Amino acid sequence: MAEKITSRQEDYSRWYLDVIREAELAENSPVRGCMVIRPYGFQLWEGVKEGVDRRFKATGHQNAYFPLFIPMSFIQKETQHVEGFAPELAVVTIGGGKELEEPLVIRPTSETIIGHTYARWIQSYRDLPLLINQWANVVRWEPRTRPFLRTMEFLWQEGHTAHATAEEAIEETLQMLEVYADFAINDAAIPVIKGRKTEREKFAGAIDSYTIEAMMGNGWALQSGTSHYLGTNFAHAFDIKYLDQSGTEQYCHTTSWGVSTRMVGAIIMAHGDDQGLRLPPVLAPIQAVIVPIWRKDKERTDVLGVAESVRASLADAGIRVRLDDRDELTPGFKFNDWEMRGVPVRIEIGPRDVKQDAVVVARRDRPGKEGKQFGIPVSGITEYIKDMLETVQAALLEQATEFRDANTHHVDSYGQFKEVLEEEGGFLRVHWAGGVEDEECIQEETKATVRCLPLDAPEGDGECFYTGQKTDQVAIFARAY
Amino acid sequence: MAEKITSRQEDYSRWYLDVIREAELAENSPVRGCMVIRPYGFQLWEGVKEGVDRRFKATGHQNAYFPLFIPMSFIQKETQHVEGFAPELAVVTIGGGKELEEPLVIRPTSETIIGHTYARWIQSYRDLPLLINQWANVVRWEPRTRPFLRTMEFLWQEGHTAHATAEEAIEETLQMLEVYADFAINDAAIPVIKGRKTEREKFAGAIDSYTIEAMMGNGWALQSGTSHYLGTNFAHAFDIKYLDQSGTEQYCHTTSWGVSTRMVGAIIMAHGDDQGLRLPPVLAPIQAVIVPIWRKDKERTDVLGVAESVRASLADAGIRVRLDDRDELTPGFKFNDWEMRGVPVRIEIGPRDVKQDAVVVARRDRPGKEGKQFGIPVSGITEYIKDMLETVQAALLEQATEFRDANTHHVDSYGQFKEVLEEEGGFLRVHWAGGVEDEECIQEETKATVRCLPLDAPEGDGECFYTGQKTDQVAIFARAY
Repeated sequence: MAEKITSRQEDYSRWYLDVIREAELAENSPVRGCMVIRPYGFQLWEGVKEGVDRRFKATGHQNAYFPLFIPMSFIQKETQHVEGFAPELAVVTIGGGKELEEPLVIRPTSETIIGHTYARWIQSYRDLPLLINQWANVVRWEPRTRPFLRTMEFLWQEGHTAHATAEEAIEETLQMLEVYADFAINDAAIPVIKGRKTEREKFAGAIDSYTIEAMMGNGWALQSGTSHYLGTNFAHAFDIKYLDQSGTEQYCHTTSWGVSTRMVGAIIMAHGDDQGLRLPPVLAPIQAVIVPIWRKDKERTDVLGVAESVRASLADAGIRVRLDDRDELTPGFKFNDWEMRGVPVRIEIGPRDVKQDAVVVARRDRPGKEGKQFGIPVSGITEYIKDMLETVQAALLEQATEFRDANTHHVDSYGQFKEVLEEEGGFLRVHWAGGVEDEECIQEETKATVRCLPLDAPEGDGECFYTGQKTDQVAIFARAY
Repeated sequence: MAEKITSRQEDYSRWYLDVIREAELAENSPVRGCMVIRPYGFQLWEGVKEGVDRRFKATGHQNAYFPLFIPMSFIQKETQHVEGFAPELAVVTIGGGKELEEPLVIRPTSETIIGHTYARWIQSYRDLPLLINQWANVVRWEPRTRPFLRTMEFLWQEGHTAHATAEEAIEETLQMLEVYADFAINDAAIPVIKGRKTEREKFAGAIDSYTIEAMMGNGWALQSGTSHYLGTNFAHAFDIKYLDQSGTEQYCHTTSWGVSTRMVGAIIMAHGDDQGLRLPPVLAPIQAVIVPIWRKDKERTDVLGVAESVRASLADAGIRVRLDDRDELTPGFKFNDWEMRGVPVRIEIGPRDVKQDAVVVARRDRPGKEGKQFGIPVSGITEYIKDMLETVQAALLEQATEFRDANTHHVDSYGQFKEVLEEEGGFLRVHWAGGVEDEECIQEETKATVRCLPLDAPEGDGECFYTGQKTDQVAIFARAY
């Protein structure tokens, strides 16, 4: 198995594609830039969906659905928005065999059509806040694509809310950023950094964009979720107004926020190793796999009997468990196969274990013998595995946090910046007072961009590593997907 | 409230649109033929999704995702398929600002692109059966649309399976029909009839199409879910082959099956009355609403205190409950409003009830005083409401079954057929030995079509009402959406 996967050291990009292929997460489709998400990959996405959807509902949001098609004229109504998205549009010009009078754009995001709708739904302050989310596919015509990270069509959710005041809308924007961070950290075991985007990196049409940035196994950054305060930009473009308590007409303040199938890419690259995937138990489609071991037929019956009873008790306890009773494959093959697929916990049961009423338990997060526990009694297996899943979940977060911190560098000068970036990579955490053009120069020379201005920045005052200006603003630079 | 809803008697089509508007289920969008599904309507759809998805997984299916776009050449590979869908296609001709070399069709259904993919996934008999479902939006360029029933874009699931033999594929086709019927009857409280489609009505590319047909409140039929045995038609078109145990190459037998947002239309029209929606408790977004009643401020505090404690205990028991504590509206308005929105059970709490430690419970399925129970003790309210929800669920199914049976007519001659159809409407259950042209003539003269050849037909031999031929085949004719 592992020999089919290029080592991360040798070629990280190939490693990523190898893991996706071997673990059967996704594959290229006959349509350029679109992928097929295979069942195992889709189950990961279903875990992401359930995790964030539950949090959306807990914070008072409801799901709805808006059309796939957007009239071309809508896209053109918000100036920055059209500039940002015009080059990426897929356009339907023929419907039912006839040329359309007005071409229809496949939504690249839905601020415009939802803005148009909200203008009719919102009349008075009593209709606010309006808190709606949509699960949808969107299309952006990307020249270069990579499965999960950047595809022409992708799946996502887009929240769209309208509020009476700027304060409320900003509070919502930050709340949803917190929801994403909470999911990433606690469900996906990815220690994301919350921050604000710079003017250059923000969403086309936003006043402020916030992001959660994750560090991948090669030290690159992945923007894993964004939350935008749109001010009254879309409200002005689409006439989203309300009568306040004094009867005066006011523009709404709106927000939008999204996570996408990109999150699956984040999970692969934040945790994967040279053996393949390592999945956080909260999201793993299979949390525990049971591999029975036997030589003789008599052993087979005994071993499978115990294996099946262990499976049943784990399943009853709500653990997602699979008994791999395929006859044609060796235990060794199965160990490697499930390791490669990232199953957090493996239970081995052989004839000797059966005699001792015990099993062997191996953790995916610790390689080889170090991660194996022998003689775990069958009687207490459910509690043991439950605890083990929590232990593995915590260990993955801890390892990813240590990795992120070990690969975050503080630099004081542009010379040092370039040197560290080239030699060490990772996140460069710096004092920053530069502007859009400075960011452009730095990107041109180093390929690094400002990932975010972290919300949590205890650094205090310092000198900008690039301009030398005094500032208390901190930025994280990195190469990014 | 009710005055905003046309009576069914007066104009059933307007009643339907009025209910959708007033209950805020959906509305027309700025894109012709596409609707916006509002939160309350979308929650109904989420209930449908959860109900069938759970059943898919219990029968061994997994979800996956295939591209929105289908190369035009794929659509043309299966002869009947292209004939059926060509007139309804939406076509993307421009992407990223450039004219595309090969136009991309927005999927009207995904047999072709999935068939193409399966051809690569399936090598040997070990890869079979392949049991996959997709939740997706699809687009069919319909000239006349109606919210939920027929929209240009709609949401659905499409299952696509591949099997080694015809027997297995037919078994799967019928199993999924059963899954749909089970959902419709037990979750949606709609007594659907399972049957086979005639040659004329079957899916473009299928050998046999099966359907669940529901009777709407005006006696019309609504096809509410279909399951197709595709034989080796798509396997031949897309080269879906496997090596059998003897090493011989064989074509796969495939199936496809789907339910869509149409099911929401079925729920509206199978149960709704002149007051509005009547939702089956299993699917109702709000199962019980609490309406507090008071005049003086002192009463308000006491009543809301009890109301909140009732709400909390129902919510703890997993009941979807809403406490309507809006100050600006009268209890009478709220009664009508929640009735219109189809909430199965209403709990009224006033000062006198508080004194008696009791509440009043009203059932949505029984109008006026008849459906009210006074003096229900607060102490046992959770069990009482749980039981009541089951009672209402069963009652809705019973009422719909009685209505269906009362509006199903057996006729022996075409004369009688036309008379009964005109005067009574409903389902006409007949012996049938006609062909495609006969069906066309009958439709032209009466607007009725064969909805299905019911699987359960105890009638035995008889004479075809139209051709006079002896036959044991039974058909249900009806006007249909």
